[in-house]
Formats: sequence, structure tokens, C-alpha cells
Amino acid sequence: MALANPAVQPAAAVAPFGSAVGLSCRECGQTYDLGPSYACLECFGPLEVSYDFGGVSREAIEAGPANIWRYRDLLPVPADVADKPNLAPGWTRLVRARNLGKELGLRSLHVKDDSGNPTHSFKDRVVAIALEAARTFGYTTLSCSSTGNLAGAVTAAAARAGLRACVFIPADLEQAKIVMASVYGGDLVGIEGSYDEVNRFCSELIGDPLGEGWGFVNVNLRTYYAEGSKTLAYEIAEQLGWRLPDQIVIPVASGSQLTKIDKGFRELIKLGLVEEKPYRIFAAQAAGCAPVSSAYKAGHEVVQPVRPDTIAKSLAIGNPADGPYVLDIVRRTGGAVEDVTDAEVVDAMRLLARTEGIFAETAGGVTVGVLRKLTEAGVLDPDAETVVLNTGDGLKTLDAVAEFARPTAVIRPSVDAFRAAFDDRG
Amino acid sequence: MALANPAVQPAAAVAPFGSAVGLSCRECGQTYDLGPSYACLECFGPLEVSYDFGGVSREAIEAGPANIWRYRDLLPVPADVADKPNLAPGWTRLVRARNLGKELGLRSLHVKDDSGNPTHSFKDRVVAIALEAARTFGYTTLSCSSTGNLAGAVTAAAARAGLRACVFIPADLEQAKIVMASVYGGDLVGIEGSYDEVNRFCSELIGDPLGEGWGFVNVNLRTYYAEGSKTLAYEIAEQLGWRLPDQIVIPVASGSQLTKIDKGFRELIKLGLVEEKPYRIFAAQAAGCAPVSSAYKAGHEVVQPVRPDTIAKSLAIGNPADGPYVLDIVRRTGGAVEDVTDAEVVDAMRLLARTEGIFAETAGGVTVGVLRKLTEAGVLDPDAETVVLNTGDGLKTLDAVAEFARPTAVIRPSVDAFRAAFDDRG
Repeated sequence: MALANPAVQPAAAVAPFGSAVGLSCRECGQTYDLGPSYACLECFGPLEVSYDFGGVSREAIEAGPANIWRYRDLLPVPADVADKPNLAPGWTRLVRARNLGKELGLRSLHVKDDSGNPTHSFKDRVVAIALEAARTFGYTTLSCSSTGNLAGAVTAAAARAGLRACVFIPADLEQAKIVMASVYGGDLVGIEGSYDEVNRFCSELIGDPLGEGWGFVNVNLRTYYAEGSKTLAYEIAEQLGWRLPDQIVIPVASGSQLTKIDKGFRELIKLGLVEEKPYRIFAAQAAGCAPVSSAYKAGHEVVQPVRPDTIAKSLAIGNPADGPYVLDIVRRTGGAVEDVTDAEVVDAMRLLARTEGIFAETAGGVTVGVLRKLTEAGVLDPDAETVVLNTGDGLKTLDAVAEFARPTAVIRPSVDAFRAAFDDRG
Repeated sequence: MALANPAVQPAAAVAPFGSAVGLSCRECGQTYDLGPSYACLECFGPLEVSYDFGGVSREAIEAGPANIWRYRDLLPVPADVADKPNLAPGWTRLVRARNLGKELGLRSLHVKDDSGNPTHSFKDRVVAIALEAARTFGYTTLSCSSTGNLAGAVTAAAARAGLRACVFIPADLEQAKIVMASVYGGDLVGIEGSYDEVNRFCSELIGDPLGEGWGFVNVNLRTYYAEGSKTLAYEIAEQLGWRLPDQIVIPVASGSQLTKIDKGFRELIKLGLVEEKPYRIFAAQAAGCAPVSSAYKAGHEVVQPVRPDTIAKSLAIGNPADGPYVLDIVRRTGGAVEDVTDAEVVDAMRLLARTEGIFAETAGGVTVGVLRKLTEAGVLDPDAETVVLNTGDGLKTLDAVAEFARPTAVIRPSVDAFRAAFDDRG
């Protein structure tokens, strides 16, 4: 029986959560009404949205808009969500990466490139779902703890939706992320500490009267927010021609994205939108923040927190909430977890740019670096259909490649000067 | 009669230029075969692609991919262009800008946001067309003179297409543009001088044996390249529901984009894809590089070159090749040319970010600034359907807003510290 949730709002004319019917605890299975809940009252486990989808057809999806709202019937959002002021993210490119595949020895490789989203990271997907929930629950301030990308996504979405924003980041982030998190207005607060300290601070703030009426997209709205990552799974499958990939490499920060891509794939099978088939999920971390990779390699089921030290700051979560679920999924699907050094991250960023014309964030260097490492190690099947995720934009982490990305020469505007500079190069 | 062009290639199995049938001089009307020609042999006027479209239906376009290749039948590209390695740009968001419209007093305002393109500017559109022409003509090096965005678009496209790249920029560009123009590989050459000097240098290089086999997208491939801007017109009309806007504000650097949007609108009318109706085209420049605006205000038909000095570096072309055509079109359609100061550019960038969650490049600050100025002056009709273009990305011109985009506060990770910092703000 569902426990009543005191904060739940009266039903609107349009079902505010669409085909979602309730929340359930991922640990003990206890069910709850749809409300601003994020932890099980029985066991403190994380809650997840459950649905009663009814029939969803490929045709209905294909007739939808070129953004995540084409999947509105599979998300906890109202049917008229596309008419509301939001950033309408998604439907980003799935790039057939023949050059990179050839270089690595992979026969069929695709890059899912989420840098084309409105604020240039996959975070626009999750924020768009959290924003709808915030509206339904009557929150007037949109907030988050962030390693950078999320702060920009939240402040941009709040600006367009007409909500107040107040977001929290570690004070030592890249300049591009700081500018992007403050240019949309609202308050940006730098915290002297790591992301994990920012996150703890936000949990404290929610319990304080100061935080009343605040929707923290990745804390008290996390149950809804996390569902946004399912759209990556839906898009990849639809863009492959309604087919699941054989193997996929996904970055791990909190681990939420990976668990939701798995959930999305399973939903597509259950709905008959794709054929059932085995798929293997591979998780990628930076060596400087690899708690899940370490646990995987040690054969543990528990993830030991670490203090992050890596240029892949958007993945620098030392205490990943969904780490154990990542281990479960990777083991269940026959995948693996691997990590790469900062130098390998930079190499992989340059490799992806040089071969496919995609300038990824450091997080994209992590996934492509792990893709390379696992291919070389014979762990990935070179003949299988493979997808690798790029979740962010190189323009936000310029320093990582600045040393290698400079003019070949600076010359006067004359052909003679050009000839002199390039004469020895043929 | 068409003059034979010695460099034209033998016809391939698939018509390499699709429905394009020839080139014609915009000044004297002389016609030429399709070839790597860019100036009239009779009068040195610029050449333009002419077509024999046959029938093109809305349905055929709507069934196409979510990128510019949905309009392949209206472009000088082969029918199988979508299968070739290119960046597949376009089909970017047309954002209904209710907040910005309300702030400015415009009833129906849309922002065409081209920052979602693969290298985050509209240049991916024009380069994609030039790349196909380069392949057809057998060029092995892709090149350009650039104010920054184009260099990144060319090197990225060349990387994916497997061509060599060598691009030329003024040496004093923003760091983000320098990194983005070199991270994809190839040679990036900084020139000590303005864009106009870079451009003259490139024209010199084409005539030199060193430049043999080089396709300069905006010089010897310019005739094809420029056609890519028509896709902005097509997308705007289709995204409005197959309707032309009443008025549109377009940035002017060389002026090519504006002339091609006008061409695109006229083609849509001619093909019966939209109803014929009057539309007004407004041109936007930065006060620090406003040769077309100055000519417009003085009632001249000739554009006097200037030496640029503005933060809108992507528009800093002091000697705009298509300036006179811009004046023609603006006068013919009942539009205007206006310019805004650097301070107004920054204000407009912040206004757009704050109201719509769109972080534009300085060039977007120019168009939104001019939109505001012309609305306040009563030149734009507040009740008419209006579109304003954002052609680039704020992440590439961070310095313009860095002064205003900083953390509100930097604090220790405690609620008490937060309360102390924000206590006086209620």
C-alpha cells in the first residue's frame, strides 16, 4: 500500500506527471504517491518513478518534436509539456564514427554527441524534467549542487521559466563554467570545498528554513530529474533505427545516468519498441576519481569514497550515490568499469577531434579513452555495434587541450612569409 | 551562352551539384558552367548558383533528416550528401521568446539560435556546402580566411572528411576560437593584421603555386559556400509552420548571409512552399565596424571600408563584399540598417541570457541590441511576427560578459556562512 505523502499537490486538469503512477524504493520496494520525495521513509533507499505506459508506438514518437518531448509519454511530465517555457533539449546527433572506429579497430562505432544541447551538456535533459516537477510542486527557486555543467543548465532553465535560481559549485571550477552559471542571472555561490562538500551543504540547506520553497534538482527533485537520462537511451535506439546497441560506454560521476540508460533500454524492450537482445554496459571514470572502477576491479559491492583529483571535473564525484547500482548493471550485462589517466583523457579528446570533428569536454575524453583502453585490451568486441557518449563541450574545458591547440605559426600577411614559415614542411 | 570552364570535372554517376544547373554573374548576368569559379570573367562581379528545382514538396522536406540535408534538393549538393562524412549541421532551435518579447514590447518574437550547430556557429552550414564542392573539384586542402568561427568549422569538417586543413585568422582572436580552430588538427596560421588583411593574403595565396589544390571555402568556393546560408531561411519558414516572418534582424559581416536569407525566402515563395507576402529585412552591425550602417544612414549605394574596432570580432569585416547588396535588399523590403555600441552589445547578451536562457556570442548581442534599438525607435512593428538571429556561442566570447558573470559570493560549506552572506538580501 502506498504511504501518503503530505506535500503532494492536488491533481491538475492535465495529469502533471503524465503516465507516471507512483514512486517506489529501489531497495525495499515500498511504494509512494507522486510527490517531492527522494528517500524511502522505511529504509532511506532512493526512490524511482514507476509508470503505467499503456501503448506507445514508434509512429507516435516519430511524429513528435525534435527534442526530448517526443518521448513525453515515457517521462513524468504533462502531455502539454512542449508548450511550456523550457529549453526543449535533446535529439542530439548520433554520429557514425568511421574514422575513429578505423583508428581503434572497431567495425561499427557511433558517438552520441550531447554537446549540441542548449547549454552544451546532457544536463539540460535532466533539468527539463526537474523543472516540470518544480512547477507542479510550487517551488519558486530552482537550485542544485553542481560540478559546473548542471549549474549552467539550471540557471538557463530557470531564466526561461521565470523562476529564481540559486546554484552552488566548488569555487575552483573552470572559468567557462563559472561564466555560464552566472550569465543567465540568479545567484551563483562558490563553495570552498569539493563537490561532495557542496552536495552535503545542499542537503543541510534543504532542512533549514532558508531552503523552504527551493527545488534542488539533484536532491529533493532527484527522483524526477534522474528520469531525464532515459532519453539518451531512447534517442540512441531510435537513431540506430529502433535497435539497441551491442555495447555502450557511459561516463560515471554519480552513476545516475548509467542506471537510467539501462532503465530506458529495458523499457523499450518491454514496450516492444525494440527487439529484445543482450547489450553490454561499460562504465568510464577518470583515474583521479575512480571509486567505482576501484570497487569493480577489487570485486567489491560497496564503493569506497575518494577525494577527487582530475581534470575531468564534471565527473569529480568522490562519493557516487548510484555507484553500487552501476556495479550491479555492469556485472549483469557483462560489461566492465575502467578508468584512464588525465594524460589519456587529453589524448582521447584530441583523437576524437582529429578523427570526427567533435570537440568534447574532458568527460568525453574519459569515455573515448576508456573505449580505446577496453578495445586494446580485447574487452570490447571489435565487431559489435558500439556507442560511446560525449556528454559535454570542449569549450568548457579549454585548458585541458590549450597546450596542444595553438597556431602552427604567426606570420605577416604575405605569401613570402607563409612560404618561409612552411618551406621545410613541403 | 555559357563560357566553358577549364577546371570543371567530368560528371559523376550522381549529379554532384543536384538541381543546380549553372553559375550566373550577379552584376551582368553572364552564365557559366558549374565549376570552381567565383568571379565573372566579363565584369569581375560575384557569381551565384542557379537551379532548375522541378517540384519540391513540404512532405518530402519534412521526411528528411533533422539537419540541412532535408533541403538537399534546394542546394548545390548531390542527392546522397547525407551519407557522406560531414558535420550534418542545422535544424537548430527556433525559440519562441515570450520573455524577451514582453521586455521589448514585441508581441510575437522568435530567436533562431544557431549556437546548437556542431562547432556552435552558423558557419557549419556554409562549410558543409563548400566541402561537397571541394570534394567534387578534387581539392585536397580545405582553407579559409576567418574571424574565428569559420576556422573552427573548416578544420572540424576537414577532420571528419579526411581532408587536410590550413586556415588563416587574425592573430589577436579570442582564446576559445584559437583553441577550437586548432584542436581538430591541420594548420592554424595567425596573421599579424585585421581580417581584411587576412582575406587579401588568401586571395594572393590562391594565385600562387603554393595554393594549388586548395579550396578556400570563402574565396574560390564562395559561390557554393554562400548558398548554405539559405538553409537559415528555409528552417525559419518551416519552423514557423511554413510561413515567412514579417520582419527579421540579421547580422552583417560580409553581408553574404543576409543576401542568401533573402534568396531563400524568395525561392520558397516561387516554389509555392510558403504563401507570398511582404517581409522586411533589418541588418545589424556593431558601431565599431559599421560600414554598411553608415552607408545606409547617409543614403549611399557604395560602402566605404573602415578599420574595425569592436568586441564583436566575428562581424569585424571592414570591407564587406556584399555590402551593396545588403543595402539593396534592406531598401527593397522596407527594412533598415542599424548599429549598436559595444556596451549595448554586452547589455543585449545579458538581456537574452536572463530572459530566454540563451547565451549568445557578441554577434548575437549585436542583433538583439539592434532589435531593441529599432523597437524603441518605432521602426520595427511591435505587432508583427519577428525573428532575430543568434549566429554564435557565448562560450567563444567569454570576456565580453566575464565582468558581469561571477559568483555572487564565495563561502565555506555551511548554512551559517550562507545565511551570513545572504542575510541582507531577504
